[in-house]
Amino acid sequence: MISKLSEEESYALLRDKRIARIGCIAGDEPYVVPLNYVFDDHSVLSHSLPGRKLTAMRENPRVCLQVDDIKDLCSWKSVIAYGRYEELTEPTERARALNHLLSSFPKLTPVESLSAEDAAAPAPVVFRIRVDSITGISEGWG
Amino acid sequence: MISKLSEEESYALLRDKRIARIGCIAGDEPYVVPLNYVFDDHSVLSHSLPGRKLTAMRENPRVCLQVDDIKDLCSWKSVIAYGRYEELTEPTERARALNHLLSSFPKLTPVESLSAEDAAAPAPVVFRIRVDSITGISEGWG
Repeated sequence: MISKLSEEESYALLRDKRIARIGCIAGDEPYVVPLNYVFDDHSVLSHSLPGRKLTAMRENPRVCLQVDDIKDLCSWKSVIAYGRYEELTEPTERARALNHLLSSFPKLTPVESLSAEDAAAPAPVVFRIRVDSITGISEGWG
Repeated sequence: MISKLSEEESYALLRDKRIARIGCIAGDEPYVVPLNYVFDDHSVLSHSLPGRKLTAMRENPRVCLQVDDIKDLCSWKSVIAYGRYEELTEPTERARALNHLLSSFPKLTPVESLSAEDAAAPAPVVFRIRVDSITGISEGWG
């Protein structure tokens, strides 16, 4: 049987995980990609090089984050969180978020690797998605 | 370094996997959920009970399927496929797709479990997403 997760249980999954799938609207079509993130103070923090995802989120800032823990077909949890895309441009705020990300991902992520190898590469954009609603469901768990 | 997958490599990942994240547009916001599927003849086959996902796909049939294989932060593949949602209502076609799904998922999925327990439950909707474009990228693979 499928059960609803409480808001607290849903936030716990979002807090624990490091990979979400982020859905946004690109032009007039949906666009979904994996996203490495950390959760901090009701916000998902992440970073990205310029590309289709950033263009889409700048145009349509309301985004959907989907996070799950799937053991098998009959034992899983899944959470959907909505929030608004906000770029972190203030230097202290940006550095704090980037430090938080890098401490959670000790191996350099693709964004930093590319930047480190090529001084002319664009700086990664650091952003926050402040979660304003969250729901979750589970089956066969615990 | 991140590399592009060929169309053939992208289809191979979509063919091999059984869980996608499907992105659609629900009203004016993106909506992303996990989806169990099988791939058959250039189409993703799946099924669902009535709900937000089906309502969204009926209104906005263009959907995005995201499938990945993530070993760790620096070793992963991810594919994005676009296609059009089509309900399978013709009995032979519907039965064939459902048989294909059930043979790929020997344990009853939530949809069938619910229907089996409650004769008054709505019949699952069986649908196809005929893929018309696919792209993929990978890092640190093979």
